[in-house]
Amino acid sequence: MLPDKIDSNDSPYYAAICDVGHGCPVNIQTSRQLAPLIGKTESWIERHAGVKQRHVSARDDDPAQLVASIAQPMIDRHGAPDLVINAGALTKQLIPDTSVFINRELGLAGVPGFTINATCLSFLTAWQTAQALISIGDFQRILICSSEFGSRGRNFQQPESAALIGDGAAVAMLQRSSEPCHVAVFSMETWPEAAGYTEVRGGGVGLPPNNPKTTAQDNLFHMDGPGLLRFVYPRLKTFLQRFLDAQGLTVDDIDLIVPHQTSAAGFQLLRKIGFPEARTVNILAEYGNCVAASIPMALSIAAHSGRLEKGDRVLVVGTAAGVSFGAAIVTW
Amino acid sequence: MLPDKIDSNDSPYYAAICDVGHGCPVNIQTSRQLAPLIGKTESWIERHAGVKQRHVSARDDDPAQLVASIAQPMIDRHGAPDLVINAGALTKQLIPDTSVFINRELGLAGVPGFTINATCLSFLTAWQTAQALISIGDFQRILICSSEFGSRGRNFQQPESAALIGDGAAVAMLQRSSEPCHVAVFSMETWPEAAGYTEVRGGGVGLPPNNPKTTAQDNLFHMDGPGLLRFVYPRLKTFLQRFLDAQGLTVDDIDLIVPHQTSAAGFQLLRKIGFPEARTVNILAEYGNCVAASIPMALSIAAHSGRLEKGDRVLVVGTAAGVSFGAAIVTW
Repeated sequence: MLPDKIDSNDSPYYAAICDVGHGCPVNIQTSRQLAPLIGKTESWIERHAGVKQRHVSARDDDPAQLVASIAQPMIDRHGAPDLVINAGALTKQLIPDTSVFINRELGLAGVPGFTINATCLSFLTAWQTAQALISIGDFQRILICSSEFGSRGRNFQQPESAALIGDGAAVAMLQRSSEPCHVAVFSMETWPEAAGYTEVRGGGVGLPPNNPKTTAQDNLFHMDGPGLLRFVYPRLKTFLQRFLDAQGLTVDDIDLIVPHQTSAAGFQLLRKIGFPEARTVNILAEYGNCVAASIPMALSIAAHSGRLEKGDRVLVVGTAAGVSFGAAIVTW
Repeated sequence: MLPDKIDSNDSPYYAAICDVGHGCPVNIQTSRQLAPLIGKTESWIERHAGVKQRHVSARDDDPAQLVASIAQPMIDRHGAPDLVINAGALTKQLIPDTSVFINRELGLAGVPGFTINATCLSFLTAWQTAQALISIGDFQRILICSSEFGSRGRNFQQPESAALIGDGAAVAMLQRSSEPCHVAVFSMETWPEAAGYTEVRGGGVGLPPNNPKTTAQDNLFHMDGPGLLRFVYPRLKTFLQRFLDAQGLTVDDIDLIVPHQTSAAGFQLLRKIGFPEARTVNILAEYGNCVAASIPMALSIAAHSGRLEKGDRVLVVGTAAGVSFGAAIVTW
């Protein structure tokens, strides 16, 4: 499953991350405010989910507007992209594709846009794709946008997942470079036997909204947390071991770990696998799990808080509904 | 907006289409059967939409099962893919991503999967992405799957669009090659000012299914056909002219045109732009508009009916909600 190592000399171009940013809807919901809605206490939420507060979009908030407000200053600094990739699981509406609305907010006319969806690993997959498209010369500057309003699918009858989810957005700009900086090596695996652990059964052609058989519960997020953890732990450990081995690296060679912000249990699992807490970016308490936006938000926060130095070797790692595992190693 | 011409010598690998296939749900709905449901006559439908019949999935049909049944013989012939890209606008369910269910049907464990969505141009975008990922050495064999059950979102109060939509699926397998065969050059443009011409306003976080403000109509397909055509005609003409010019080609250099199967009016528009009917693959009357599956279905039908000869120069072209224009030139 592992890709061949990329020999940088093979590619005519390199794709450097020239900018990264993040943002959230203004409204904050603390775990004290959420507690009565899900029949749990504030301390239960903080203990089980690891989340003290999450941003929750107001009715008038719009995911395309939010992510465009993060992208606009990047365009002002670096110039307009020649491709916009929306990387996420949750659309603004079914048709057109969400990238169209992001481009509309940004006033981009004629710039192609599309969406990549690998649920919580969408950003990682879009990054791999963008690197490939720049490397072969198809595009020069690609904007990757993740904007997830997962709070609108929270299931208050499932306190564990309802406590986890927050709304957020992040943007990364990749640019053609003559220097081999930020060249990332990626790996991903999908294990569909675990598809049932994290689901929204509705929202597609299987149980469409207008089908009388579709229930309100079908349109909300369902998670079997304990089952998921049991499935993920041994396999994620093997996956990461194989990935590091293939690059000739060990945990000690990694300066910073930027993980998807799954849950408190997810962070415990990373520690158990051998990744030290001190070198792991954890923004879960402030933001919750923002689906595909979590990884680029964590990357942006690490970059802007001085935790990423030029030359640092960074491991980006995550899991997604599927269950999928994904990882990238990039030299910052 | 046009990509640089790909210099094949720059890429360490080539990505050849080694197999292509298509299929549909068993049930057929003729325009005679559809006519009373939308308050029009059979001849009105055939004249306006250009569709004599369309496949319409039965309740138990599943888009992942359908597309897997097309992909399985390809895997038997060529081997398992190391990546599966689901290329389409319509998901099986919201989470996990549809690729997970395709992989489950195919018994693929550990093979990564994700979705690319550019509505009706999803296949073209996935093809460009797959070519890039193979070219830089990330993957060796990629399965691109499109399976669209658009009939489940037909709006019987809008006879024009309801008459157009059909269900179908197609698969293409791309494989690393040492020969520069099937190297395609792509171009895409998105014009978001036209986002309102083709919409499903529901199905996302804007008007989610459980929101009491979401109406049944919001969950169905809306199209302003005349407005769309007026917008598309001059811009598509310019787009295609620029694309051909950039490759140093004219219409006469194209052996076969494989277009998205938009509508009878869409085919008239292609003729008006200057593409001769005799060299254009038209499967609209038998299948209707199958969203992202239309282009690979037309490609598969052309390949299997002897209309594609080795060395033919093929123009693949389409429009998508957005409005987006997309095109590829490939030597078969």
